[in-house]
Amino acid sequence: MGRRVKMVAFGVGAIGSMVVRHALERSYWVELVGAVDSDPAKVGRDVGDVVGLRKEVGLTVSATLDEALEGREADLVVHTTSSFLEKVTPELERAAEHGLDVVSSCEQLSFPYYTNPTLAERLDLLAKREGVTILGTGINPGFAMDVLPAVLTAPCLNVRAINVTRKMDASNRRVPFRRKLGVGMNVEEFREAVRSGKITGHVGLGESISLLASALSWKLEEVRVGEAQPVISLGKARDLRTAVEAGRVAGVKQTAVGVVEGRQAISHTFLAYVGAREEYDLVEVDGLPKVISKISPCVHGDFGTVAMLLNMAPKVLASPPGLLTMKDMVLPSAFLPSL
Amino acid sequence: MGRRVKMVAFGVGAIGSMVVRHALERSYWVELVGAVDSDPAKVGRDVGDVVGLRKEVGLTVSATLDEALEGREADLVVHTTSSFLEKVTPELERAAEHGLDVVSSCEQLSFPYYTNPTLAERLDLLAKREGVTILGTGINPGFAMDVLPAVLTAPCLNVRAINVTRKMDASNRRVPFRRKLGVGMNVEEFREAVRSGKITGHVGLGESISLLASALSWKLEEVRVGEAQPVISLGKARDLRTAVEAGRVAGVKQTAVGVVEGRQAISHTFLAYVGAREEYDLVEVDGLPKVISKISPCVHGDFGTVAMLLNMAPKVLASPPGLLTMKDMVLPSAFLPSL
Repeated sequence: MGRRVKMVAFGVGAIGSMVVRHALERSYWVELVGAVDSDPAKVGRDVGDVVGLRKEVGLTVSATLDEALEGREADLVVHTTSSFLEKVTPELERAAEHGLDVVSSCEQLSFPYYTNPTLAERLDLLAKREGVTILGTGINPGFAMDVLPAVLTAPCLNVRAINVTRKMDASNRRVPFRRKLGVGMNVEEFREAVRSGKITGHVGLGESISLLASALSWKLEEVRVGEAQPVISLGKARDLRTAVEAGRVAGVKQTAVGVVEGRQAISHTFLAYVGAREEYDLVEVDGLPKVISKISPCVHGDFGTVAMLLNMAPKVLASPPGLLTMKDMVLPSAFLPSL
Repeated sequence: MGRRVKMVAFGVGAIGSMVVRHALERSYWVELVGAVDSDPAKVGRDVGDVVGLRKEVGLTVSATLDEALEGREADLVVHTTSSFLEKVTPELERAAEHGLDVVSSCEQLSFPYYTNPTLAERLDLLAKREGVTILGTGINPGFAMDVLPAVLTAPCLNVRAINVTRKMDASNRRVPFRRKLGVGMNVEEFREAVRSGKITGHVGLGESISLLASALSWKLEEVRVGEAQPVISLGKARDLRTAVEAGRVAGVKQTAVGVVEGRQAISHTFLAYVGAREEYDLVEVDGLPKVISKISPCVHGDFGTVAMLLNMAPKVLASPPGLLTMKDMVLPSAFLPSL
């Protein structure tokens, strides 16, 4: 990398703000040249102020990418606006039309050929035509339940089944994250929130299973993603600040399976609730040899997602054009060039 | 992959024989078109016989690659003759001159820019001129102490240090492997065997540290690889077949460190001895966030190496020309195409 990467932060919410703060600490390889957010309360303010720094950075938040790029050159968009492919597609298209590579935390973009093959192919064609690379990544999907399990099969001669469990204690997480899990609701409120779409559960299980199967060249016959189920509080949380009354919802359990050659070859379990006693990322590869891997505590979600975005950025810039997924990328790793 | 990959097994020792047996089970994507070994006791015999199958496969072992390729086309060499770069270089060069991609278990080839930069650059130039890809991989180096730790840093915003430990119970391993560890020697015999080079310890610690640092774009100031140290038997092995008298050598302990910006940023510990109570691959990333990963039992060495060779083969065929290392490759994973 001869010169610094000119980066636009598209989205300065919780994750986007962390991206900006950590990008500013990496001024030896990245230069923040723009910030975009649709929230009128953020537009026009200095980015430093919006992302919670105590200093101005001399760059204001724009309402659109077009405005952010007026009179400026850029290389890369770090995109963090939404989990949903349909919602982000026009934003990704605009970035591609500006000739910018994109690394995005959009969960459904991690394997959009599962979510919406038509949109995925349209984005891939556009990216190739414009000569840009588009990648969806993050901690999950993007690492814990797809990339890491795929890598753990590399030393296997055969694989019969892969079971992946991510278990998180929601006590340690952001308030909006707990709210998305329905923490504190009663069971009826929870079920109603699931029905109305207010609680979506974890977005990305289907994408993770599809990405993992694709990495192994397994042909998936079916992906079954279960509804978010309530985990009921026993009223025993150690942390009074986040304690949940017994009988109310402490968080979410969600499972998904992938069927290959008639059998449940991939099983994913996602658990996030207040008071979970041990946090871990467990991968069990039932193969030759067996590979059983446990990361304990589980990799921190917010740090992990921001790190995946920033660490994959230089690899995205060096990749061939197209809509890529993590299985197409060179070996993921931290990017921490010595000064 | 439209047609089957035509593979030559260069080396049919312990690992090469496993490669052949598993390649023959993968006839839906790989076709064995040749086998080479320098051992006169193997040359001229049917490959099936040499690799311990109960059936002939209609292909005889050749003494040289040139002979194996007479009148035959091939795509790829799976190379398993030696741990040492100088020894394998003429063999790799011959494969490149035949226009064949190479995936090799040669430990020093996993990061030859550490071992011998001059030879590495010569091989890289030749590979590019001939339009072929050369890769060194295996379980270790190639996975447990370099690729996996690198991947585990991907969700980290910062990394202060990486500690990697691989601990193996030598009771479960091949006799030649135990012999290489000096199992059963007295301490004086062991020290003499280390001095004379009869016991080399684990080959690859320096390569693993260099590969890992390179993946993170860390500039290594120094790599210190310690001598193999004897682990002394307490006479308590559970397995009488492999038990070692108390006071004699049960196996090897070896450590290595990589220095970055004046500090020991990478520390590797390799332990292989009869009676080790727990086998594991432990990676501790002291970073933001911390990532502590344990695979228990450790990934089996022989299965792992053969799997890495066969699983990386299609990725090598799809890679750009040159002498590559695992950090340049697309995401490693099992390659198990659905039929």
